[in-house]
Amino acid sequence: MRHKIGIILSGCGFQDGSEIHESVLAMLALSQQGHDLIFAAPEHSQVRVVNHLSGERAQEEERNVLIESARIARGDIEEISLLKADDIDALVIPGGFGAKANLSTFARDGVSMEVEPKLQALIKSMYLSKKPIAAICIAPVILAKALGEFGIEITIGDDQDIASTLEKMGVRHVKCSADRCVVDHKHKIITTPAYMIGKNIADIYPGITQAMLELGKLLKMPT
Amino acid sequence: MRHKIGIILSGCGFQDGSEIHESVLAMLALSQQGHDLIFAAPEHSQVRVVNHLSGERAQEEERNVLIESARIARGDIEEISLLKADDIDALVIPGGFGAKANLSTFARDGVSMEVEPKLQALIKSMYLSKKPIAAICIAPVILAKALGEFGIEITIGDDQDIASTLEKMGVRHVKCSADRCVVDHKHKIITTPAYMIGKNIADIYPGITQAMLELGKLLKMPT
Repeated sequence: MRHKIGIILSGCGFQDGSEIHESVLAMLALSQQGHDLIFAAPEHSQVRVVNHLSGERAQEEERNVLIESARIARGDIEEISLLKADDIDALVIPGGFGAKANLSTFARDGVSMEVEPKLQALIKSMYLSKKPIAAICIAPVILAKALGEFGIEITIGDDQDIASTLEKMGVRHVKCSADRCVVDHKHKIITTPAYMIGKNIADIYPGITQAMLELGKLLKMPT
Repeated sequence: MRHKIGIILSGCGFQDGSEIHESVLAMLALSQQGHDLIFAAPEHSQVRVVNHLSGERAQEEERNVLIESARIARGDIEEISLLKADDIDALVIPGGFGAKANLSTFARDGVSMEVEPKLQALIKSMYLSKKPIAAICIAPVILAKALGEFGIEITIGDDQDIASTLEKMGVRHVKCSADRCVVDHKHKIITTPAYMIGKNIADIYPGITQAMLELGKLLKMPT
């Protein structure tokens, strides 16, 4: 059955936006299942712009999260406040620095982080509607903050420091390799570490593909 | 057997650089075959910068082809003149507006186009060394110009106007759908139409994957 899947992007490039490979592999797996993809991103300046060749910050440059995300979405993307839980059946958040800086303040604030308010509201609304949510790479930190109070189970791979921080928010952290994913069936939360562990695109493909297939299975369950 | 594959990028985004999905799917198929990927791009300003949300040209913005390409390559990319035919076993060129504007002048000049001189030299050198070359989407126009004199066989899908233009350069054009590729075994040239025809990422996956598998087969043949 065809479902509508919301994908939240945070720019275009792993050092200041959405991780491109993770975003594209999630799109591929969902599109191959026949789902319709609805892209959204917040419309504000990126926290930083990084020259991905030198790895250094481009101090003078300013880029907009929504406009840069449109590169991955091939132009078909909307401002995040337009995306409502009623419009979609599931939500997917790829990783990249943007997930911890443009969609949340985890990069700066750690355990004291905040989630972008419109995204926080969307996640809460999806959760309360019993609709599945998947997060890739570092993006599960967003779910930890937004849904930690419900004791969800997630993975960000095997980084013990980050795992400890997330457990302080109320989640249960499970170690996981890049070729697998963690499915919290009770709360309908799916997470996979991708480039938190994987070294190349072939490493992260199995985990992301499996995560999107598990999302498809959860969509078939009664809400 | 593990081979070294050169991938030529032309920016990051289908309206002013490399088509992101095509680039990532080619990387995936090659990485899954165990090959080492070596990325390269020219270091000059993009011909244009396009706001991918509005589709309009961002007149005031300037971006560098090599620096933007580094987003897709996750930073591991070199200036194109550093990439020699001796260093690699095959060459792959994804599509996007960058292929016809940053790597060649096809977008502006049509049949009178020129190929970026360093890329022209690399392609010629690869061809004369009997090493396979693959091009995706609109990128086969580059091969038409660089290698048309040898009567190569290529596809850019089913656009009759572009096909006629390419035939004036000496190539034989073959119609092809997005889920297939055209293999010119004699000249070791592989092309697939991807987003010249495909509507979404699931449409273009089979053709690009098949093209990269055919590239792998050509690599096993004696030179």
